[in-house]
Amino acid sequence: MSKALGAEADALLLELAAITSRPGMIARFYLTPEHRRAMDLVGAWMRADGLEVSEDAVASVRGIWRCGKPDAKRLVLGSHIDTVVNAGRFDGPLGVVAPLLALREARRAGLRINHDIEIIAFGDEEGSRFPATFAGSLALTGQFNPASLDGLDEDGISLREALIAFGKSPDDIAKAAIARETFAGYLEVHIEQGPVLEAEGLSLGVVEAIVGQTRGVLTVTGVAGHAGTVPMAYRHDAFQAMAEMAFALERRARSGRDGLVATIGKVSIGPGLVNVIPDRAVFSIDVRSSVDATRVEAVSMFLEEAHAIAARRGCTLEYVESQVAKRVACDPVFRAGLAEAIALGGQRVRELPSGAGHDAQVMAALGPSAMLFVRCKAGVSHNPAEFASHEDMGDAIAALAAALPRIGNVRNDTD
Amino acid sequence: MSKALGAEADALLLELAAITSRPGMIARFYLTPEHRRAMDLVGAWMRADGLEVSEDAVASVRGIWRCGKPDAKRLVLGSHIDTVVNAGRFDGPLGVVAPLLALREARRAGLRINHDIEIIAFGDEEGSRFPATFAGSLALTGQFNPASLDGLDEDGISLREALIAFGKSPDDIAKAAIARETFAGYLEVHIEQGPVLEAEGLSLGVVEAIVGQTRGVLTVTGVAGHAGTVPMAYRHDAFQAMAEMAFALERRARSGRDGLVATIGKVSIGPGLVNVIPDRAVFSIDVRSSVDATRVEAVSMFLEEAHAIAARRGCTLEYVESQVAKRVACDPVFRAGLAEAIALGGQRVRELPSGAGHDAQVMAALGPSAMLFVRCKAGVSHNPAEFASHEDMGDAIAALAAALPRIGNVRNDTD
Repeated sequence: MSKALGAEADALLLELAAITSRPGMIARFYLTPEHRRAMDLVGAWMRADGLEVSEDAVASVRGIWRCGKPDAKRLVLGSHIDTVVNAGRFDGPLGVVAPLLALREARRAGLRINHDIEIIAFGDEEGSRFPATFAGSLALTGQFNPASLDGLDEDGISLREALIAFGKSPDDIAKAAIARETFAGYLEVHIEQGPVLEAEGLSLGVVEAIVGQTRGVLTVTGVAGHAGTVPMAYRHDAFQAMAEMAFALERRARSGRDGLVATIGKVSIGPGLVNVIPDRAVFSIDVRSSVDATRVEAVSMFLEEAHAIAARRGCTLEYVESQVAKRVACDPVFRAGLAEAIALGGQRVRELPSGAGHDAQVMAALGPSAMLFVRCKAGVSHNPAEFASHEDMGDAIAALAAALPRIGNVRNDTD
Repeated sequence: MSKALGAEADALLLELAAITSRPGMIARFYLTPEHRRAMDLVGAWMRADGLEVSEDAVASVRGIWRCGKPDAKRLVLGSHIDTVVNAGRFDGPLGVVAPLLALREARRAGLRINHDIEIIAFGDEEGSRFPATFAGSLALTGQFNPASLDGLDEDGISLREALIAFGKSPDDIAKAAIARETFAGYLEVHIEQGPVLEAEGLSLGVVEAIVGQTRGVLTVTGVAGHAGTVPMAYRHDAFQAMAEMAFALERRARSGRDGLVATIGKVSIGPGLVNVIPDRAVFSIDVRSSVDATRVEAVSMFLEEAHAIAARRGCTLEYVESQVAKRVACDPVFRAGLAEAIALGGQRVRELPSGAGHDAQVMAALGPSAMLFVRCKAGVSHNPAEFASHEDMGDAIAALAAALPRIGNVRNDTD
């Protein structure tokens, strides 16, 4: 049963995956002809299920099911349908397809809740086209920053121009917002993009929080020299200083608590010649934890250590912080509802943080927000090898269907 | 006195430095119009001192002073007049100018030796233009490889074509060779390109050997992953593996004997995105020591350690050795002659290895070869900041003048 639901979901995912701007791979960017076709496809699915379909001014497709109660609040379920270059077919679209099928299942089983349900397909989560991202969820929560309309894509087209060319009116963006008093909450199904559920043999997990993040760039300056003529004791090798810092950062993250992770993903050294001692090393850091204090302390202690390493080696160190995002907690009542639904399916409930950012973190500004993670193969995402099985997707749809009445009723009762 | 000699040398170096293909910097490449002008200038200096000047088929300028004895062997003194891009004025040219002035000084003092003296200005030591290098000293020692004539510069011009355009006949290269039985030895004055003499307060040093060298490239392959979603314990981070290897290599070199140095000068990582765990790290190693066994053992033990690091981290490691050059010892009799001359100037004699390659290592294939190092500021070379003082260059010229009769006589006596 569950497996059949997953197969049904996958058929829809494959239909969406066929819509791409680059032959031989999945690539679907915000406000492009492919986005248009994907929106039309999702809209058609929604209409076929009897939802009231509309599009807002930032090109989110929205389908509403009415519970029939007066003054019903709105429970939003969704994710995004834009992708990175050479993407998989699950990251994003699964969070649109799963609620569609779950709502269908739940209605078939006689769903009675106190909220309207809105299924939404955001168009701008990956940030593949414009400098700013999350246009859909920012508009939906009234947080859209008009300054981002001036951001340009690589062809020099602004978001404003692209919206207008897409038939949307930037002046109407404010109208896309859901009023706080009518918002019941947001629920997003997404592949885990990590290896935890697979390692623990679980198909589903409840996200307890979307982790906080610090990004920055360190520049080590040393002294260049001839690789043959400068004895080790006389060197001020910027790369070796960086290597020691990298090692220190990794050690700190490994021994850290609260899901602390640290990554050096971007590195360059100068002058970059085989026989010249490097005088310059530049590297990025990306540090995350589900507890903000843990992250902030880790970064600060690492920087202290890095400065000491630089000083001991006669190098200098400069650090520029480029981005800081605080942890966003998922709603405890929603989490409990998801946990109950998972337990109902006979599985152990695993709570885990989301190390990646999602629309759910934007939605949390308006009210309850939560996520259901689905096991993916080897933790791989943003890659054609991205994979979630029919069984696991079926489990997710079944759990979501089971969670709807729990979340939907509880909230109105406690309002 | 010594300082005046150095000032005289510097005047000549400045004349040469003015010959450049790039305004605002020194850049003088093999077989270019600037090389032609530099050869003419050096030839004119030689002629003014009464030397017999000629050019050979690979465009070395050669000036001979005859000692007047029948069956005299030939003692060769020289260095190169080509440069890197944005060079200093000392690296190479000092080794042409110093013997000119030293010979003048020695003759003024009534030089009597059993060897003819040939001063030579090689045109191809830096390898700035063609893939192969050392054309001058390879031809002089009969080791020139005709295959290198097919090597192309960045404009697609072969060495053969460039020689012909320069008015030289590639067929005559074999005629440039000095017969082994008439070769008395080679002596090269060069800036140290390292910090040792400066650190020890000495203007001169005797090179005991040109160090052996191993170069290779290591490729670490790990597993890419999302910087936020893969816990530290699940990572196979190729860059972190490389950082640990770098640290291990440095530790090994630092604790090594025999002037062991190790450098990682070239690094690249993939995919190279801030928020993606690197799956690929490629880096060069350059390992040198004045004792070959020390170098070979260091490389082999490092590779063992690197493989263990890769294995422990679930990464794979590939190593490709690109270049191995054995140590070339300097001639003990020549070294003793230089040491005596330095001691005569009242200085402590410091023997040190040359970590850089020089024509002297090529010349050693034919007979005795030796080098005199001159202190340079902060060990800097291949850079406009390259600097040797008038005092130090004067010391070098005086020492060389004093060494000539010592080396020149001893050799014939012991033949």
